[in-house]
Amino acid sequence: MEGVDHLAFERNKAQFDVEEMKIVWAGSREDFELSDRISRLVASDPVFRKDDRAMLDRKELFKNTLRKAAHAWKRVIELRLSEPEAYKLRAFVDQPAFTDLHWGMFVPAIQGQGTDEQQQKWLPLAYRMQIIGCYAQTELGHGSNVQGLETTATFDPKTDEFVIHSPTLTSSKWWPGGLGKVSTHAIVYARLVIDGQDYGVHGFIVQLRSLDDHLPLPGLTIGDIGMKFGNAAYNSMDNGVLRFDHVRIPRNQMLMRVSQVTREGKYVHSNVPRQLVYGTMVNVRQKIVADASVALSRAVCIATRYSAVRRQFGSHNGGLETQVIDYKTQQSRLFPLLASAYAFRFVGEWLLWLYTDVTERLKANDFSTLPEAHACTAGLKSLTTTATADGIEECRKLCGGHGYLCSSGLPELFAVYAPACTYEGDNIVLLLQVARHLMKTVSQLSTGNKPVGTTAYMARLEQLLQYHSDVKKAEDWLKPSVVLSAFEARAARMSVACAQNLSKFSNSEEGFQELAADLVGAAAAHCQLIVVSKFIEKLQQDIPGKGVKQILEVLCSVYALSLLHKHLGDFISTGCIDPKQGSLASEQLRNLYSQVRPNAVALVDAYNYTDHYLGSILGRYDGNVYPKLYEEAWKDPLNDSIVPDGFKEYIQPLLKQQLRNARL
Amino acid sequence: MEGVDHLAFERNKAQFDVEEMKIVWAGSREDFELSDRISRLVASDPVFRKDDRAMLDRKELFKNTLRKAAHAWKRVIELRLSEPEAYKLRAFVDQPAFTDLHWGMFVPAIQGQGTDEQQQKWLPLAYRMQIIGCYAQTELGHGSNVQGLETTATFDPKTDEFVIHSPTLTSSKWWPGGLGKVSTHAIVYARLVIDGQDYGVHGFIVQLRSLDDHLPLPGLTIGDIGMKFGNAAYNSMDNGVLRFDHVRIPRNQMLMRVSQVTREGKYVHSNVPRQLVYGTMVNVRQKIVADASVALSRAVCIATRYSAVRRQFGSHNGGLETQVIDYKTQQSRLFPLLASAYAFRFVGEWLLWLYTDVTERLKANDFSTLPEAHACTAGLKSLTTTATADGIEECRKLCGGHGYLCSSGLPELFAVYAPACTYEGDNIVLLLQVARHLMKTVSQLSTGNKPVGTTAYMARLEQLLQYHSDVKKAEDWLKPSVVLSAFEARAARMSVACAQNLSKFSNSEEGFQELAADLVGAAAAHCQLIVVSKFIEKLQQDIPGKGVKQILEVLCSVYALSLLHKHLGDFISTGCIDPKQGSLASEQLRNLYSQVRPNAVALVDAYNYTDHYLGSILGRYDGNVYPKLYEEAWKDPLNDSIVPDGFKEYIQPLLKQQLRNARL
Repeated sequence: MEGVDHLAFERNKAQFDVEEMKIVWAGSREDFELSDRISRLVASDPVFRKDDRAMLDRKELFKNTLRKAAHAWKRVIELRLSEPEAYKLRAFVDQPAFTDLHWGMFVPAIQGQGTDEQQQKWLPLAYRMQIIGCYAQTELGHGSNVQGLETTATFDPKTDEFVIHSPTLTSSKWWPGGLGKVSTHAIVYARLVIDGQDYGVHGFIVQLRSLDDHLPLPGLTIGDIGMKFGNAAYNSMDNGVLRFDHVRIPRNQMLMRVSQVTREGKYVHSNVPRQLVYGTMVNVRQKIVADASVALSRAVCIATRYSAVRRQFGSHNGGLETQVIDYKTQQSRLFPLLASAYAFRFVGEWLLWLYTDVTERLKANDFSTLPEAHACTAGLKSLTTTATADGIEECRKLCGGHGYLCSSGLPELFAVYAPACTYEGDNIVLLLQVARHLMKTVSQLSTGNKPVGTTAYMARLEQLLQYHSDVKKAEDWLKPSVVLSAFEARAARMSVACAQNLSKFSNSEEGFQELAADLVGAAAAHCQLIVVSKFIEKLQQDIPGKGVKQILEVLCSVYALSLLHKHLGDFISTGCIDPKQGSLASEQLRNLYSQVRPNAVALVDAYNYTDHYLGSILGRYDGNVYPKLYEEAWKDPLNDSIVPDGFKEYIQPLLKQQLRNARL
Repeated sequence: MEGVDHLAFERNKAQFDVEEMKIVWAGSREDFELSDRISRLVASDPVFRKDDRAMLDRKELFKNTLRKAAHAWKRVIELRLSEPEAYKLRAFVDQPAFTDLHWGMFVPAIQGQGTDEQQQKWLPLAYRMQIIGCYAQTELGHGSNVQGLETTATFDPKTDEFVIHSPTLTSSKWWPGGLGKVSTHAIVYARLVIDGQDYGVHGFIVQLRSLDDHLPLPGLTIGDIGMKFGNAAYNSMDNGVLRFDHVRIPRNQMLMRVSQVTREGKYVHSNVPRQLVYGTMVNVRQKIVADASVALSRAVCIATRYSAVRRQFGSHNGGLETQVIDYKTQQSRLFPLLASAYAFRFVGEWLLWLYTDVTERLKANDFSTLPEAHACTAGLKSLTTTATADGIEECRKLCGGHGYLCSSGLPELFAVYAPACTYEGDNIVLLLQVARHLMKTVSQLSTGNKPVGTTAYMARLEQLLQYHSDVKKAEDWLKPSVVLSAFEARAARMSVACAQNLSKFSNSEEGFQELAADLVGAAAAHCQLIVVSKFIEKLQQDIPGKGVKQILEVLCSVYALSLLHKHLGDFISTGCIDPKQGSLASEQLRNLYSQVRPNAVALVDAYNYTDHYLGSILGRYDGNVYPKLYEEAWKDPLNDSIVPDGFKEYIQPLLKQQLRNARL
């Protein structure tokens, strides 16, 4: 059965041009070709195999990661890969490693916050990996609240140095990836103290380990923080703990692009706008949204293919049982996730545009769109990562019992993805930030402040408060304008309701705390509107390929209407739609599922993932699941011997009733 | 700081008698004392330590499990523990092991399905563990649909034997715990074939391994199916694969209590009712519901204590930051789970009564309540396990980044719990079973068939279809009758709406498939009503102890109103309540959270879990979290050496730019 495509009959059902959809998913033909080439390169290299990861113990896994990282870098050099190619290569190696932090946080921090001089000194070393850096911000007792960090950097004018110190146990740096065992340098965030005065948190470049013998430098205590969720997952990463005992660094190792400390110990601001840091945040979060669509699409790809392979119940006259993908319950759980993966892909594309736009405006000293852009990316990070983590776990359940096997790939996907809900801003804290922005937007409407970007719809508040959906039959829900209006009206009304309730409090901060759960709801409604509207905008573009645009329109409706179904209470209780219209939406949704059904396997093929990258026997391209599951089982270390280690000591005494005398 | 109770200030806030609540949670003073004594016994025994589990590789973990199982049995014998005591001991050892299947499935299967003769032969051996048994039902290609199993047991009249055979790859037995490496015997489910005729699936006792050298008997291929989700979790279990090549067993090893094969090869039924098997199901699922309350309460205990320890934001004038448990967003996520743990505890208690009731009726040949009891337990299994799996993951997120560390205990809790949503009936399949029962109940109303048990409210259908809530102010939602009516009306209307929509289909099975998602919704609404009503019934009992009943009333309202809030769309769109009443419920809910707040830590103390059983540094009783997290980190194997294994091969060549020549 090798070489046979067991899913060919599914692929033949597709009503659209899969090759063209691959281009749409990738973003462009160039992006498609880049991903396609690099993913095959990685998949064909035996050093990058990952099917044995779950069986390695911590030390073996970590050493294996070091090997892959070194080999990846070697290939980058040998093949003279460009930075985008190298980035893709690391992504397709698909194993969290210190290099993620080096390239993703350490280098950008110097680029963004270092002076020209600092960049000239440090970046060439970092680009060649002659130094390896990490990003040491969070502390044992301090996560979300950066302003609460306790580590101090005290200026010593006598020696022109900063003294970095951990004054308490809770100030120990805790979590930074790459810190525990590998990094030679770190960007350390600490409270700047000059002459007894606290100037708040700043970044400093600190050497951690000797470049000769790799031992921590004097005054530094460094280690790994221990095992994390999942079999392999982030256990390939040396998330670290770091304590400083009065460690001295030269003054010029404070990142001084925005503010400086002079030789005399004066704290001064440069003319570089502080808002730059928000530009960086927009960039980091845009990447997180793009990653969400990748992670979710991998899980959906596995669940969709296996749902087409797997059969349960419904056999007639001893024939084949029904493919589980034909069950409406399966469709109503799986297809909204399939649609979400595409939705997140397109909103991620748009965020990339937003980042470019913000960056250009910043260069021109135009900060007007920044608060909105910041709120919008915070909200989208929260929405997409929560939906993706939940969605991966849902896909695991959709695979039945076998989804629980590591060889399904889903446990690893979930465990690797889970922290995205917490890092770079806890998802609930981020929604509260969005809510603050929304409340501000609402309150400024009366002052004539025109809302911009994704809050622009608020300018039509009068109209949105009057709105009632005019849906009369199920098909009406297919019109983008109908869907958009309902989402706009619901989001606007939830914001306005919060604003009204807030105004009843004499202390607005107290009101904000008290109404936090409602505010989170309003923020979520606003973010859902953004995703829906960007999906609709995408479909207003010219999209070539037979049937491609048509099936994307179906997915767009599935995404919007499944959200509407899930949050029906919001839509009805705000009076945007009535119960009858809600049930018409459900009716239309069932109809849409039938349209997705024949295209489902082709829609996940369009992601163009190699079997290596997917890392799942259930999600194999050829659908040859059961023989391969069976084969895989025998590789487990427990199967090395027929009689297990421990039989003589612990099983035989039971069976022989010799337990009393047994030494256990 | 050792020996200091860092949460004493929280415990002093409690407004109820914690010691009395411990009795309520345990069910009775005897149950409390039993659990208390056995949990301390386990906690104090070094063989049962589990803080190192995540770091063990598969073989080490498995051997460690064998050791614990043997030691547990040794203690049971030495201390002459009763069966309930032994059961508790295994539960508090808290590591999935082959003994779970031996005692939980193998023994009960023989008790329930074996003839008196078979019981006399096999049970004494099993009770003494001279044989170790497992339960081999599911196959590689067959899970939920037991009738689809492929393994055959063909009667050979010449030798008076059954020939057990695996005709296909997909018929390989797959998943049975304890099968892979340990069990000497199995209950094997196979299609009974006599003279070419298929009599459906029956159970057979099959010896798997030699009682001398533990090698698989001829014709059997047995192995472990490989790594599963989580660091330790079910990797301590030898879930197995098993193939039969024409394996012969004596005829008297078919479990023959309900139906027999005679020496002549005749298939005959005994006078024992087939419905007995449903009684067993009620029992198994009642245990699953009880386990759900335990698993959820452990997660809630960890998240609640750590939310009281952890502080983020809101520091005023350099003082302490705010405890995260004081944030409404935290409360609105955590307290409904705290309430759910109690709700599931009480519905579990009631299920135990139901099981007794059903068993007594069966003995008296009264099968009238069986379909309702079966549907009810199926639904409650589904509701409680889904809510618990989601709830554990939510608790992990509520602990911020540190919840992702294995030392938080939450990853292990989640990975161990996740399969409960799939085993003993996939949760969605079960809800569809409930829906079928509800549709039948509705359709029989017109024929004058009086609905019984948890569907009794359907008898008041006329009235429930007229119902509209009379809530006028937030406090009205505190009245149990008000809540109950709203839940009854919503459940009844959702069932009736489904029944009406179903009637539009000419083929009712087709309609059932098409409307499956709505049917699942109606079934879920019905199950939520059961939990709410059993919580309310519990509070009609006499509950002693200062403030105990009062705080339970608060939790009952939290449980019901948070469900109402979550499913607001159902309640409003069915016309049971209007949007204004919905927002009054939210207002009341916020008020209730404030009442829970001072009692939160005491409410989780009432579970009376030892730190050993909880297995979480974040959830330590004394709240001394950060020093212990810090201490724990250093135990990771990666910290055995300062410079990591692999440095010379894979890091130094990077730093020294000697990659080209490096052999990787």
